[in-house]
Parts: sequence; C-alpha cells; structure tokens
Amino acid sequence: MRHYHDWEPFCVDPLKPELGQEITLRLRTPARAGFLILERYGEVERRPMKAVPGGLEIRLPLHTSPLRYCFFLTEEKAYLAADGLQGPMPRYDKFFHLLAQPTVPDWAVGAVFYQIFPDRFRNGNPHNDPQSGEWVYMGRPIVRKEWDEPVSYGPGEGPIQHYGGDLEGILEKLDYLEALGIEALYLNPILPSGSNHRYDASDYHNVDPHLGGNPAFEKLVEALHQRGMKLVLDGVFNHIGNTHPDFQKALQDPTSPEAGQFTFYADGSYAAFYGVKTLPKLDYANPLTVERWIDGYHAPVRHWIRKGADGWRLDVAHQMGEGGTDRRNAEILRLIKHNSMEENPEALVFGELFFDTLPTLRAHTLDGSMHYAGFANPVMEWLSGKNVYGWEVAVSSQAAWDTLWDHYTALPLQLRQSMYTLISSHDIPRALWRLSGDVQRFKLALGLLFTFPGAPGLYYGDEIGLDQANPYHDWNGDPMCRGTFPWDERRWNHEVLAWVKTLIRLKKSVPALRRGGLLPLQVTEQCLAFRRMYQGEEVWVYAALEPLEVVLPRVENLLTGQTQTGRVRLSGLGVFRLLQ
Amino acid sequence: MRHYHDWEPFCVDPLKPELGQEITLRLRTPARAGFLILERYGEVERRPMKAVPGGLEIRLPLHTSPLRYCFFLTEEKAYLAADGLQGPMPRYDKFFHLLAQPTVPDWAVGAVFYQIFPDRFRNGNPHNDPQSGEWVYMGRPIVRKEWDEPVSYGPGEGPIQHYGGDLEGILEKLDYLEALGIEALYLNPILPSGSNHRYDASDYHNVDPHLGGNPAFEKLVEALHQRGMKLVLDGVFNHIGNTHPDFQKALQDPTSPEAGQFTFYADGSYAAFYGVKTLPKLDYANPLTVERWIDGYHAPVRHWIRKGADGWRLDVAHQMGEGGTDRRNAEILRLIKHNSMEENPEALVFGELFFDTLPTLRAHTLDGSMHYAGFANPVMEWLSGKNVYGWEVAVSSQAAWDTLWDHYTALPLQLRQSMYTLISSHDIPRALWRLSGDVQRFKLALGLLFTFPGAPGLYYGDEIGLDQANPYHDWNGDPMCRGTFPWDERRWNHEVLAWVKTLIRLKKSVPALRRGGLLPLQVTEQCLAFRRMYQGEEVWVYAALEPLEVVLPRVENLLTGQTQTGRVRLSGLGVFRLLQ
Repeated sequence: MRHYHDWEPFCVDPLKPELGQEITLRLRTPARAGFLILERYGEVERRPMKAVPGGLEIRLPLHTSPLRYCFFLTEEKAYLAADGLQGPMPRYDKFFHLLAQPTVPDWAVGAVFYQIFPDRFRNGNPHNDPQSGEWVYMGRPIVRKEWDEPVSYGPGEGPIQHYGGDLEGILEKLDYLEALGIEALYLNPILPSGSNHRYDASDYHNVDPHLGGNPAFEKLVEALHQRGMKLVLDGVFNHIGNTHPDFQKALQDPTSPEAGQFTFYADGSYAAFYGVKTLPKLDYANPLTVERWIDGYHAPVRHWIRKGADGWRLDVAHQMGEGGTDRRNAEILRLIKHNSMEENPEALVFGELFFDTLPTLRAHTLDGSMHYAGFANPVMEWLSGKNVYGWEVAVSSQAAWDTLWDHYTALPLQLRQSMYTLISSHDIPRALWRLSGDVQRFKLALGLLFTFPGAPGLYYGDEIGLDQANPYHDWNGDPMCRGTFPWDERRWNHEVLAWVKTLIRLKKSVPALRRGGLLPLQVTEQCLAFRRMYQGEEVWVYAALEPLEVVLPRVENLLTGQTQTGRVRLSGLGVFRLLQ
Repeated sequence: MRHYHDWEPFCVDPLKPELGQEITLRLRTPARAGFLILERYGEVERRPMKAVPGGLEIRLPLHTSPLRYCFFLTEEKAYLAADGLQGPMPRYDKFFHLLAQPTVPDWAVGAVFYQIFPDRFRNGNPHNDPQSGEWVYMGRPIVRKEWDEPVSYGPGEGPIQHYGGDLEGILEKLDYLEALGIEALYLNPILPSGSNHRYDASDYHNVDPHLGGNPAFEKLVEALHQRGMKLVLDGVFNHIGNTHPDFQKALQDPTSPEAGQFTFYADGSYAAFYGVKTLPKLDYANPLTVERWIDGYHAPVRHWIRKGADGWRLDVAHQMGEGGTDRRNAEILRLIKHNSMEENPEALVFGELFFDTLPTLRAHTLDGSMHYAGFANPVMEWLSGKNVYGWEVAVSSQAAWDTLWDHYTALPLQLRQSMYTLISSHDIPRALWRLSGDVQRFKLALGLLFTFPGAPGLYYGDEIGLDQANPYHDWNGDPMCRGTFPWDERRWNHEVLAWVKTLIRLKKSVPALRRGGLLPLQVTEQCLAFRRMYQGEEVWVYAALEPLEVVLPRVENLLTGQTQTGRVRLSGLGVFRLLQ
C-alpha cells in the first residue's frame, strides 16, 4: 500500500482534537492530486486537498464525532478507504472514523497490561482468608482450598472455591510485575461479594476485607503510582448482587425509590444478567439509578477514581442501559467516561464488549474495549482450530488476517492502538490449553499479542506457561482458566517467561510496535504477516506456522539484533525493522 | 454457494412479521447441524437449529427490528454471514438484518417504475404553459422554450427554462407507458414553484396550475388506478421554497410560531439546503413543523396520500431532521412512513439517499431508496470508467461486483427486492451519454437494471435512447439530463425500445428475476455475472463486455427461448433459467 493514513502526528493534527476545532488531515502518498471525501449530515462533500511534502493535506473544522471520511486519488482513479483503494465509493462502514475529545489517555496507548483474578494470584495475608463454611452462596457453603489444589468443576462449584489470594499478595509481587515490564494492572472485581469472582457485589464503596479491605487498596494504589504503574478496576454497573441493600429494599418495599432501580415483571421476576437471579440488572431509565451509580458525588464510578484508580474496564458494557425499560446504552457509557475524567482527566474507560465492538465504539462512548472479536478470536481460532466455545472452526491464515484487518480498519483512529488485546482472560480458556500445550504455537500467540496494534493484556500466569487441567466446563472456560499462580519457580516455563520479557521490551522500545498503524503484508497458507508503521519507521512482522523463507529488504532483526537482507529463513515469529 | 438465506417464503416465515411475533427462519442447505447466531441487547446468543427437509429451521419471537443474525454450520466449521461462509464470527455489519412491520408493500417488490420530470415529458395542454417573462426566478425572468429547442446550460439558466410539459401530457401517454410494461410512475415535484424543477415549492396543497392543477392530478390518479398502475410523488419535506408563506411570515415576524420552523443564525442567515437561500430548511425539532408537514390531518405527507398518491420518494431523506438544531432523522422518517400508511396501508415510502443507504435503512425507517451507491454507481462506473462527477475511476468487473454484493448483502432482507434501482435520473447524467452513445453498452446497463434485484426505475426517454447534447455542466448533470421527450418516433432508437420491452417482460414474468435473491457467479475480467434464486427457480445472468464462451448446465435461454447446454457463446447480456 503506497498510501497511508492512520493515527500519527503527520496524518492527524492534533491527534486528539476538540469538537469544533480546526484540524489538519494528511495522507502519506506519492499522489499529487486528490480530494477529501467527507460525510456531513448524511451528505457526502468533496474538498480538494493540497500537495505538501510527503503527501496531501487539508484543513477543516471537526464538526462531529466520529468524523467519517475517505480520500479520492485522481491519478489512481480510486477512493482510498480505511481498508485500501477501491473504484466505487466505499460504504461509510469503511470510511475512516475520527473521534473528537474525550478519548483515550496517552498512557494507555500501547500500554502493557496484566490482568489479575484477585483470589488466585497471591495470598499475601493468610489472616483474611475466607474459611470453609464461613457463608453460603447459592445454597452451598463456600469452600476454602489449598493453593496447590486443583480447581473443581462440578455443578455450582465454580464460584464457591476460595484460595485466599488478596491485594496484599499483589503488593508483594509488584517487583516481579515491574521486572516483567508491566505498566498497568487490570483487576477483576474487588468489592465484597458472596462469590469468588465478585461480579455480584453487595457493597460498592469498600474493598472486600478478604482481599485486605480499603487499607490494602490504598497501599496498592500508592505503591503502583510510585512505580509509575496504573490501576484499572472492573466496573460492574450493569447489575449488582441480589444481596445488595438496594435490591433487598426493592424486594421488601415495592414503593421505595430503590425499587425503581430495577425492572420487575408481572410475575414478580426481574430483569437480570442473562436471567441469573443473583444478578439483578440496574435500570438506567430511572434517574435515581444514574445518580446513585454513575453521576452523584458518591457514585462508585466517581468514588474509586477519586480513590486513585486510573480507569474502568466496564463489565458487559454493551448491556448497560439496554434491555429492561431503557435503550440508552451510548449515553450511559458516555456519562461514565465523562464523570471518570472529571475525577481524573487521565482516566481510561474501556469496555468488555465480548462481541463486535464497532457499534459501541463508533458511537463515541469508550476508549476501547477488550479485543475478543478483532484479535483474540481470529488469532486463537487460527492457531487452535477451535473457537472459545470449543467448536471446530476452519480459519486459514488468510481468514484470520481478513478478520484482523476488517476490525482494525473499522475502528476509530484514536482507539486502534489502545484496544485491550488478549489471548487469555478469566472468561475464556487459557491460550496454552487451547493449543494443547504446544509451546511453539503459544509463543506465536504471545508474539502476535505484543506486535499487533493495541494495549496487550497479559492474563496472570500466561507468562510462565500456566496451563489449565481440565476440559471445557462451561462455554467461557470458567472456572478452569482461573487456577492459582504457582510461585514455585521450578514449575515455571522459563523459556516462555524469557520470551514474554523480550516481547514486552520490544513493544515498549519500538515506536512502530507501540504506536504504529497497521498495513497488510503478503499472507501465505502457513504464515500470517503484517506491517507496522509510525512516523516513517516501518516494522514487518511474520507469524509462521512452519519454517519458511522470506525475501526481505535490508532490515534489523529485532529479535536477534542482526542486520539481514535477501532470503531469510523464518521459524515462528519474525520481527524486522526496515533500514534506510 | 451451497447455503442460501434470503427474503423468500421458505427462509423467512412470515415474510413480513410483526414485532413480537413468532417467526420461523430457515436456511436452504445440505447441512444437517447448525446454530442460529443472534444479537440480543448487545450480546450474541446461540440457538440450535432443527434439520428439516431442504435445510435447517428455528422458531423464535421477533424481539427487535432489525433482528441481526447469522448461522453457524457445524460440519462446515464456519459461520454463514450475509456475504458467505467465514471462519471467525462476522461483524454485525455482515449479519442478516430482518425488519419487522411496517415494511415495503407487496406491489413495490420488483415493480417497474418510470420516472418523469413533468416539464419535459409531454405538453398535453398548451393553454397552461408558462410564458417567457411571466415571473422572475432568482433575478432572471423565466424563459419559455420550444419543445425541440436544446436545453441551455449557462449560469443560472438551468431552472428558468420552461417547456410546457404537464400532467395532461402524462395522461395522454398512459397507453404508451402501459404498453411498455410500466407499473408505477415516480414524478418529480408537481407543486407550485418558481423553478422548473419545483424543489422549492410555495404551496404544498395544490398542484401547479402550469401542470394542470388539481383537476389534472385527480384525473391522472384515476386513470392510473384504473390501469392498476401506481403513482409515487416527490416529497420535499427537508426544505421549502423561500417564497412559501410560512417562510415569509418567519422573515417578517421573528416572534411568530412559523419562525420556529426554521433555524436562524446570529447574522440573520438561516439553515438551507446546501446553503442555497431559496431553499430554507425545515427544523423538525419544533413541534409545529412536525405537525404542519408530517403529522397533522392537513399535513402534506397525509394530504397527498389521501388524494390518491401511492407513496413518496423523499427528497434528501438523509438530511431531514439532521443539521439545524435537530438530530432525529430516523424518527422523522419513521413518522412519515407511519402516517402515510395510516392514509393508505399500501403506501410506499422510499428515500433519495444519494450516498450510502445503510445507516438510514438499517434504522428501520424507509421501504428502500434510490440505489445510486449500490447499483447505479458501480454499474455505470464499470461500463463508462467515470463516476457521476465525471472523474475517471478504475472499476474492474470484480470491483463492480464486489460493490454490488457488498451493498446487497448489507441490506435488510425485506428491502433487497424493492430498492429503486436506476442508471439515469434527473440528478445524474443520462446513461447513454455517459457511455458516449455506445448502444451495446447502454443495452448492457439496461440489462443489468432489469435483471438485478430491485424495483427498476426507468428515467423517461432512456427507453427510446434519449441522449443529452452537452458536456457535464454541473456535478449532477442538471440541466442537461432533463431534455424533452421526442415524440416523433423517427427519432427513437427502436432497437433500444424493443430491448427494454423484452427486459420488462422478463422482469415481470420470471419470479426469480422479480422476487429472487442474489448469489455470486464467476466474475471474469470482461464479464460481470450473478445468480438469482426464488423458491428453487434459479436464473444465471451474464453481462459480457466482449464476446465470450461460458459452460452451462441445461438451461433455457430466456432471451431466445432456446434450450442450451455445455459451451455457449455470449455477447452482451445472457439470461438463463436452469432446467431440472
């Protein structure tokens, strides 16, 4: 592709414009004549661009967000859409989408995340551990398990097994995480709850005492910030636990203001997350709900940012304010971002968005989302031949690339480098297990995680080759993917750990890998390949299933430091910086 | 493609479901196991399908509109998206989109339309002709021209040239139109206005006396309906003429209720169609505007349907309720459809939608739109090498097909067979002129018009090979594409006329061409090709730029009536029905 437009200072100036501001859009191109093709109130306008050194340029005010546009190149006789040149005008779907402020904070661009499921990472304080039978969850007494005991997967056993992990444990291991190169933590829920996953909290203003409570949280925030690290919390604002006082009040007194926060049906049932009775859904059509959870001074959205969290990962962000009696998902998400930024202008708010992220992200709502649809799924399906449900899927290198490229080019420009990319999480089976323990393929998956555009999220334990013991229990991998972290280093895969450190070092030190845009490179049957580009620096990435030979210009092999040119033999990941 | 899902009784039952109704979705397929993949409030659900004779089936209630879904085929290990099989889950953009009621009336499915620019089709009553100097338009006295005088294109000359065409003239030629096979007329505006195009009307309740006034309209409606023909009017509800009393009142009295119908700015200027001062934009944020134009008993949207019009073509439908102070385009369009149907349950309401139609049509607003983006543009760019602006564009057969397929598969199922397809209109240069008079290519364009899915709209005169004399004047072809219809048959291209009659006969007599879905067929460098399918009937269509040979199963050549099989030589259009 000889023409390039992505989120870099040459192409978009300023990178984060305000609505109404004059902006300059530039296309890197040898073309000397072209037009900006711009959507405005449903019409398409054409404005001539000016030839400048390195490309074509135009200035215009940013009248809406996202601004949808593409280019027409006169000599090429074609439109440049987000996914390349084409003769007829592309659909708006393939126009470039540029957001106004607010958008993603700088620290999150290409940032290296580490996700921790608090009960399973490290037990720093044995005195606050839940004890067997200490309470009953969904009719079953909870069970205290030893750290090295395997997770059980019998019916109902998932959420009642407690291993004693806590925030004090995370504090103890900050040196480990910093040495690994981690820049930000994403913690699964930490508020008091009857389950080990804590997605059904009973109190939104205090950290679970079993995790160390508020004091441990404060210490963790301070220690992270001293190291320049960030903390993102899991924001569960779609539903709350049925034990929460607001829901109990609603049950007891249907005339209470609290009752208006939920959607009750004629038979006394109520709207709930996937119909699960322990997870009553908040109805944001009700002003009290908005005030109490998102907008008021004490609303948890504001409270925890004020207490030092650097952002939210919003659980089932696509469900919030949808279903029940409301259809205001985009407004509610915008308000969460707005209020988080009022508390901290650098707050990051991204979504879970388990499926297609585009309808939400193009509504100018969030700073991005977990990238299952546009990264984890195609990559892991390509490498394993199965999707997250365990169904066999036929995904060739070309099909995997087509999906990666389709989602990447459809994303608003500002979100492309900060999508939370991942290969494992608490909601899907661990990558190594999906690859049947094939370490070479696992290393390839990790290689793609750290070379593809985005803010890579490493799931605790993946870096030392943590596997999971058993077959798919549930569609989402729960609870098998939530094993404890083995701190006995003899159980670590040190080859994988060294590999992850190398990849993190590359991600952080090579601007094209951290902030660069994406361009296609020849994909073959056994090899997925792409280019990254930033301010003239260009890196070529190959992910080869079988050893193969490629022909390269003069390059620096970023994995070995060698200068190479011509025929180069590849095995697994290849990362090459073009030399002038 | 071995798997088929489109808008036909086998696949969607009922074809036009009500919201909340139980529906049956079926996939024609040899596959015996699969799932429906369904978007619901932002989540994706998977439901097993049942094997039935001919395919897979599932019943479910229609919970929203559009319903977005695709299929997963277990043995194929792939999703069936709207555009075909793929390994990773498709984006919602390529899910099937199914609408609830209200949607397109049956009469419009595959209906053959004829578009008339009233001043230029036929002068039936010389006594009501505008006379030179009878009034002044934009500072220029209007000009009466003789029927055979060429259109002038000097600055400002476009809208002031009057030729005397009228509704009486159309009445005189209904035999001609019926013999041609026309089923519905679409008339450009007929309300009183200072311009010949009448897009700036001064009165919304009376037909322009120069066109024969209300009596001629009543006669035309009656005569059309006697013949079983329909009448669609041009609904200009985005803006009105600056001479309209409401706008004059607004200018004179800023405190009047009428003033609230427009958006005035600090310098006394006002929102107008593309800034054109004669076309002040209606602001639908104001309740009076909604009442007076769309919703009230006397609102013109209702009035003209009550008077016998069968529907609306909404001018700049994408701009209505957008810009100015409002952002309620979808709501306003839905209300127009709703109110039109209240007056006549069989009313058709489609949009101009000059660019990408999908954002509007997927919002469940209209029954379709003029199909520039997904038909006229790719077809005419492929055949002429130029777009409507006269820019050279490089559009191969493959690129043309890709665009046709991309738009077709993105359309809601119910709208696919009633999109108003076209190759010429009052807003773009005539097809024959764009093809430099090349009659063979013109016949190919007509061939695609009548074999591609949609309700084909023939622009008056195209059927007798009406050309236009001069180069592009304005971007939109105006006024050169608006020449008078030459009623002297010696000036007709009878080859083209016979061809159009043949094509119309095919369109109306072959269910697969009228109501059938679309499937790909091998496209080559010199030949665009596709399949149409309806209830098991299958038709193959080839549009060849150069003579070529294709290999066919046993077919009926629908242009010759011959049975053919094996190698068949093609020149131009080929239309073949598969024989069992």
